[in-house]
Amino acid sequence: MNWGSIDRYAKSLIKEAGHKIRVSFFSTIDIDSKADANDLVTNIDRDIERFFISRIKRDFPEHRIFGEEGFGDEIDTLDGVIWMLDPIDGTMNFIHQKRNFAISLGIYLDGIGMLGYIYDVMNDDFYHAAKDEGAYYNDERLATLENTPLEEAIIGVNASWVAPNRRIEHMPIAEMVHKCRGTRSYGSAAMELAYVASGRIDAYLSLRLSPWDIAGGMIIAREVGAIATNMKGEAPHLLGQDTFIVAKPGLHDEILKNHILLK
Amino acid sequence: MNWGSIDRYAKSLIKEAGHKIRVSFFSTIDIDSKADANDLVTNIDRDIERFFISRIKRDFPEHRIFGEEGFGDEIDTLDGVIWMLDPIDGTMNFIHQKRNFAISLGIYLDGIGMLGYIYDVMNDDFYHAAKDEGAYYNDERLATLENTPLEEAIIGVNASWVAPNRRIEHMPIAEMVHKCRGTRSYGSAAMELAYVASGRIDAYLSLRLSPWDIAGGMIIAREVGAIATNMKGEAPHLLGQDTFIVAKPGLHDEILKNHILLK
Repeated sequence: MNWGSIDRYAKSLIKEAGHKIRVSFFSTIDIDSKADANDLVTNIDRDIERFFISRIKRDFPEHRIFGEEGFGDEIDTLDGVIWMLDPIDGTMNFIHQKRNFAISLGIYLDGIGMLGYIYDVMNDDFYHAAKDEGAYYNDERLATLENTPLEEAIIGVNASWVAPNRRIEHMPIAEMVHKCRGTRSYGSAAMELAYVASGRIDAYLSLRLSPWDIAGGMIIAREVGAIATNMKGEAPHLLGQDTFIVAKPGLHDEILKNHILLK
Repeated sequence: MNWGSIDRYAKSLIKEAGHKIRVSFFSTIDIDSKADANDLVTNIDRDIERFFISRIKRDFPEHRIFGEEGFGDEIDTLDGVIWMLDPIDGTMNFIHQKRNFAISLGIYLDGIGMLGYIYDVMNDDFYHAAKDEGAYYNDERLATLENTPLEEAIIGVNASWVAPNRRIEHMPIAEMVHKCRGTRSYGSAAMELAYVASGRIDAYLSLRLSPWDIAGGMIIAREVGAIATNMKGEAPHLLGQDTFIVAKPGLHDEILKNHILLK
């Protein structure tokens, strides 16, 4: 397996997809709701996923693809090479803001993250990493993260997890919100993972993410020393939805130990 | 008073200040905490405010300046022309992210907003408006906002107001969070006001803002038909801190009536 060559191929494909997305703003965007009214998808999400799949199937016929829009393969094992793709992570932002969304891609070999990419399309900001070779923000190598105590941390957490909800005890989360320096919420897991990896925020957590939301970002985050797990402290499930927390090392422990109580 | 000339002057000054801020990333940024550990200020905030003040005092000696860093005038009446300035709104983002902050400026005559500006420095996105002459995003005229029901709205609200706090009953806010389509939090009131004015989010609320945080944005928001008040439904206090909500017209009513209960 020539991973250097796959890396160059993936980068080129992502940049081409980004261009297609930027151009899409000049055409009509059709909006559907998927599982529920707040889970939106557009013809552009679908077109971009199909674009990736047609290219990957042509050029790497033995690889499998696990994509948000479901045009890829049925994936129930992590054997072999799997491209885990979210063509537009942050579709609601894509529709309403025309910014703050990302292409997210992680390429896994037998469940091990080999290559990770997050492309903030509108800012033309490209985050990428290869296993054991470090992570990059455009051409700049990202520094290894140093720990930040909770009191000085900026945490990516959506208000819905601070309100009473059926997945997590909200009061320990509310305590975390008061104790930390500040919270942010951007509406794209991939972008928030990229922000953790590049030190713009110190942690990010969510109670319900899919493999394609985190597959690329986890590889990037790992290369700068961030810890990414589910909220039981285990490796996140890569075949279905799971809880998720990524943070600087000591901060990950502190949040998980003191502020996470799953229902 | 030649407002067209003041408008051109202000735009030029803001662009020059933006350049100074971008260049500042190549020099040392010193960080102080002001009122408390989470209220940060840097030498750059101070330098930029002094830059504005020296120019305005030289060229408009009869105007007064109300600035976040306190180098302007003591302001206890709204008489005459007042420039309300936040040289860097979102200082925590400025420090940690080198993005997601804005220069915010509103120019008032006897308490009436005449000219408003928000400059997202790193994106080079300029939002501006003149009273009764419409609002602009760069060179593009912003459309009048149409109403969005709460169920379809994206709301800018920080997690700290969803957690129990001493200013507002958090349970009605938590209900709003569940009922709306999604929430976001960007850490800059000026940017969130600009996002409401340009339709990227549908409402923004905060329990504690200062005049310079909202002075520019309120003028821009008003020109596209957004409603900006404090949480009692009154005009926000321009001489000191106040609560704040800006939203599309019907949405403003709906949130204020059903989800805001001040302590």
